[in-house]
Amino acid sequence: MREFDPHFAHTVFFWFKNPDNQEDRAAFEKSLQKFLDNSAYAKTSFIGRPPKASRDVVDGSFTYSLIVTFESAEAQQKYQDEAPHKVFIEESSHLWAKVIVYDSMGVQ
Amino acid sequence: MREFDPHFAHTVFFWFKNPDNQEDRAAFEKSLQKFLDNSAYAKTSFIGRPPKASRDVVDGSFTYSLIVTFESAEAQQKYQDEAPHKVFIEESSHLWAKVIVYDSMGVQ
Repeated sequence: MREFDPHFAHTVFFWFKNPDNQEDRAAFEKSLQKFLDNSAYAKTSFIGRPPKASRDVVDGSFTYSLIVTFESAEAQQKYQDEAPHKVFIEESSHLWAKVIVYDSMGVQ
Repeated sequence: MREFDPHFAHTVFFWFKNPDNQEDRAAFEKSLQKFLDNSAYAKTSFIGRPPKASRDVVDGSFTYSLIVTFESAEAQQKYQDEAPHKVFIEESSHLWAKVIVYDSMGVQ
């Protein structure tokens, strides 16, 4: 959980249709955690939410964030194709209105 | 470097004015690495760049990414105010046209 693999970081921000709906939030957290627990490829698996108080320069409008690291771009591709990932998308994609994904390879 | 603290993740994406300028890139990497090496508060310190080939749903338009974790929101605030951070901003802020910052607290 705490190991951060600097080869490949996959960062996702989710904006919910109903960000204040507690049932939606609980369902999403459960579904995402199940996926990450069952992924054969995800290393770091961090699920976050914005702090209540945010500085002006910070975009605190998202509902959830996800940071997952991998040993390689190939491992990240395998994670995209994993059955647990597809289950998560099926279970949860109706909850969000927008997603932004950023992939990064470590420079060192 | 590899320790990921799930309490607070600070994620920054930088879009350069001249993303193909190798001198700008080298100066930025050196300046940012110096800051992170001298920070008393940053835990994980990951500097990334987009993979060459990206999937359609991924925003690969940024020049550099930064992922830094902290033991608390208070530690992140102290990092904002550190002298090495101010030096980094002074040295490097002319290089970027746009920055997006997302802060996240771990849900668990």
